[in-house]
Amino acid sequence: MKFYYAAGTCALATHIALEEVGADYVAVGIDFSKNQQRSSDFLTLNPKGRVPALVTDKGVLTETPALLFYIAQTHPDADLAPLGDPYQLAALQSFNSYLCSTVHVAHAHKLRGSRWADEVSSFDDMKRKVPETMLSSMMLVEDGMLAGPYVMGEDYSIADMYLFTLARWLEGDGVDVERLPGIIAHRNRMRARPAVKRALAAQGLD
Amino acid sequence: MKFYYAAGTCALATHIALEEVGADYVAVGIDFSKNQQRSSDFLTLNPKGRVPALVTDKGVLTETPALLFYIAQTHPDADLAPLGDPYQLAALQSFNSYLCSTVHVAHAHKLRGSRWADEVSSFDDMKRKVPETMLSSMMLVEDGMLAGPYVMGEDYSIADMYLFTLARWLEGDGVDVERLPGIIAHRNRMRARPAVKRALAAQGLD
Ligand SMILES: N[C@@H](CCC(=O)N[C@@H](CS)C(=O)NCC(=O)O)C(=O)O
Ligand SMILES: N[C@@H](CCC(=O)N[C@@H](CS)C(=O)NCC(=O)O)C(=O)O
Repeated sequence: MKFYYAAGTCALATHIALEEVGADYVAVGIDFSKNQQRSSDFLTLNPKGRVPALVTDKGVLTETPALLFYIAQTHPDADLAPLGDPYQLAALQSFNSYLCSTVHVAHAHKLRGSRWADEVSSFDDMKRKVPETMLSSMMLVEDGMLAGPYVMGEDYSIADMYLFTLARWLEGDGVDVERLPGIIAHRNRMRARPAVKRALAAQGLD
Repeated sequence: MKFYYAAGTCALATHIALEEVGADYVAVGIDFSKNQQRSSDFLTLNPKGRVPALVTDKGVLTETPALLFYIAQTHPDADLAPLGDPYQLAALQSFNSYLCSTVHVAHAHKLRGSRWADEVSSFDDMKRKVPETMLSSMMLVEDGMLAGPYVMGEDYSIADMYLFTLARWLEGDGVDVERLPGIIAHRNRMRARPAVKRALAAQGLD
């Protein structure tokens, strides 16, 4: 498999999953500062012009929740999702869908305001609100979705990789992380995992 | 099961799925004009203050992609997802994740700008851009994600219910639907299905 990412983006979640299962893959970095995600080669591969993208022998897959689930499903021995329990699996999907459609989207309003508006004054307004929206959306995780020690309770899963990835953005987004002690403890727990360290190192992050 | 919806919202997709599988459920309408989604009773049930929400005997599930997948998984005879094929299932999840995180989010900037900004000028700016963002995000569906006659090809699935639900918003969002002939043909195909008609009627829609 070929895995396309940009350093420090949401693609880190998938990168960690690939490392956790010991997948056979090559990682290809996309340089946002050179706008490589909009190059014609990359757009042919993923017309959305976004990362992550995973090239499998059957085709190209995109969208973090789908990639995480695909990696868990194709590596059942790694036990990264409750594949045999429809309710728990739906709860896991619900968590990942919330991160994707609400938390990640809140963050994107800091630097990607031009997706949804045209005026500089709107971009500034959106940017100013990010500390508030990131805090309030993560407070729902803190208070009701993080069973502990992992998202799903005792069982480590793909949800943890995704939460860790977005939680890395909190300080940069101006969030007072003292309000989120459970998420910060979870982040530290994640940082101690060898697969997480390998994925971070591969992206030049710490 | 108890299914919470508001008429014409993204909850329609789940409503259709419940009808398609012949689920045993009660539908409860939430009135947005009375802000019932922010009532303390509803927030106890779903702290996000959003629909859809599905109360099962194991707990409350939210997020459209998760609810659709749960209904498909718990009613395998209805054959609404390629449950035995990890790649096709990931492709389906990818489609639903894209609708949830990109297409639905583009639409939400018309009436819900206050989620991401504070100034009236920003809300107006966001509103003006909705026809463009809805068209461009749906063009990617039209050109590359809608195999035809259904999203996944010959096999009708939960992806079709979700696409239909968001495609109902196009004219109201000011999109020139002549640019989206495949999606409009799909919408008409969906409207002819008895389960779709029942869900629409239950929500007082046509
Ligand atoms: N819903 C997608 C979002 C993907 C996404 O927006 N990725 C960002 C990085 S975090 C990106 O590629 N941005 C590049 C751009 O907007 O040009 C997912 O969860 O994978
Ligand atoms: N990501 C969620 C989004 C749910 C959502 O935003 N629902 C809207 C209706 S389409 C809602 O409840 N809005 C009420 C509000 O914002 O107050 C999903 O796909 O279910």
